Amino acid sequence: MAAKITGSVLVTGSNRGIGLELVRQLCESTCPPSQIFAGCRDPNGPRVKALKELAQKHQHLVTIVELDTTNQASITEAAKVVGGQLKDRSLNLLINNAAVNIPGSLTETGEQQMMQVFQTNTVGPLLMIKEFLLFLRTAAAQSGAQREMSSQRSAVVNVSTLISSIEKCPETFLHAPMYPYRVSKAALNMLTRCLSEDLKKDGILVMALHPGWVQTDMGGPEAPLSTEDSVTGMLNVISSLTETHMGTLLDWEGNRIPW
Amino acid sequence: MAAKITGSVLVTGSNRGIGLELVRQLCESTCPPSQIFAGCRDPNGPRVKALKELAQKHQHLVTIVELDTTNQASITEAAKVVGGQLKDRSLNLLINNAAVNIPGSLTETGEQQMMQVFQTNTVGPLLMIKEFLLFLRTAAAQSGAQREMSSQRSAVVNVSTLISSIEKCPETFLHAPMYPYRVSKAALNMLTRCLSEDLKKDGILVMALHPGWVQTDMGGPEAPLSTEDSVTGMLNVISSLTETHMGTLLDWEGNRIPW
Repeated sequence: MAAKITGSVLVTGSNRGIGLELVRQLCESTCPPSQIFAGCRDPNGPRVKALKELAQKHQHLVTIVELDTTNQASITEAAKVVGGQLKDRSLNLLINNAAVNIPGSLTETGEQQMMQVFQTNTVGPLLMIKEFLLFLRTAAAQSGAQREMSSQRSAVVNVSTLISSIEKCPETFLHAPMYPYRVSKAALNMLTRCLSEDLKKDGILVMALHPGWVQTDMGGPEAPLSTEDSVTGMLNVISSLTETHMGTLLDWEGNRIPW
Repeated sequence: MAAKITGSVLVTGSNRGIGLELVRQLCESTCPPSQIFAGCRDPNGPRVKALKELAQKHQHLVTIVELDTTNQASITEAAKVVGGQLKDRSLNLLINNAAVNIPGSLTETGEQQMMQVFQTNTVGPLLMIKEFLLFLRTAAAQSGAQREMSSQRSAVVNVSTLISSIEKCPETFLHAPMYPYRVSKAALNMLTRCLSEDLKKDGILVMALHPGWVQTDMGGPEAPLSTEDSVTGMLNVISSLTETHMGTLLDWEGNRIPW
């Protein structure tokens, strides 16, 4: 079943890996979104070729937006650009995908590593949501007859990970110590859950999504899941979200992961 | 039943609230610790009178140590001071109690608030554990016949909170939005769980403890629990810890809180 995401979408960190594949599959869908904004830290940098080709091919659909989610000024500027182009100033779906990982054993982890990864993986999504909240609220309010919560109406998807699960830590820790990454993503899960509670009155659905262990720069070549299959699953999950998924952590197949 | 904590103990943030009461009850116990190190950001500051009186009264037991857990240089210096005084350079129990809270609605919360609270409440405990790990390891190794994990042998207790529970967020959010605090404490829970996995090979028990909603500067006067009762409960829980409590989040009555 093809995922049905027909509103306006903004994806952060979209020049490679899962972000790039999200933009690709959204573009090539049989019923594509009305507008796709592809956030990318440096649109003139070295690793943007594939995204640029995609935007060229689907130029009425895709807008590349310069966006560094660790920089408030960059986020503010991106919101101006996106806001100026959004139909009815209404954003239906924000996918906070941009994230970093660094080597993270106890020995390797100090203040600088903890702060840097937390800023990108946790604070970045918060700043994005605050800056784009007006557009998400407008989308939720304009949904007219369709009052159910959904990604067609207004939603935020925070890309999280299985190893954000505090519950499952004893099963996963030895294979992936990664203190800063794990801590930042558990923090992102709490942020997701708080926002879900806070924004339900506005009709905005907020949830967290684990893409699986994927063959990307971050996941490495030994990962069992291709980027294509992961993103196909993610988009199916996103397009089927209802009120019951508010404030949950799901994997790319729709299975719930414990906190 | 009086709590039995007879080894060496270091408490951070000990000049008021729960930290001060921990030091008081440990001093006044019928079987007190061998040494108590009372960490305090500014021993010559305005709110240290009660701690100084306590240290004066129990001067062979209590050492006030200048310790700002947001400052690596201060932590390093404190470890030198404590290490120089520890019998056998062996620390049995580290209680990471120092923490901050700030107003934290979505509107009030930005990058600065998130980073500041994360640094104190999450990174601070990590830096403390790393700096004092050698002494905790020595304590675990020197325990001789007593090979069971316990707070008598070698343990780290991170003071957490009920509202760190991502699971329980829908029940608690409206009464206490507190984005930075909640996020930092969920992050601390993940850190606790990672450290628990990492340090079990050394015989060091790591867990997180919720003191209850307590009548302190942070809890406010309407809190239902006195500082005395909370700390009595906490010390009972700490003194009864075994391997089964490794990597858990418990409340002051010993009840398990879900992540």
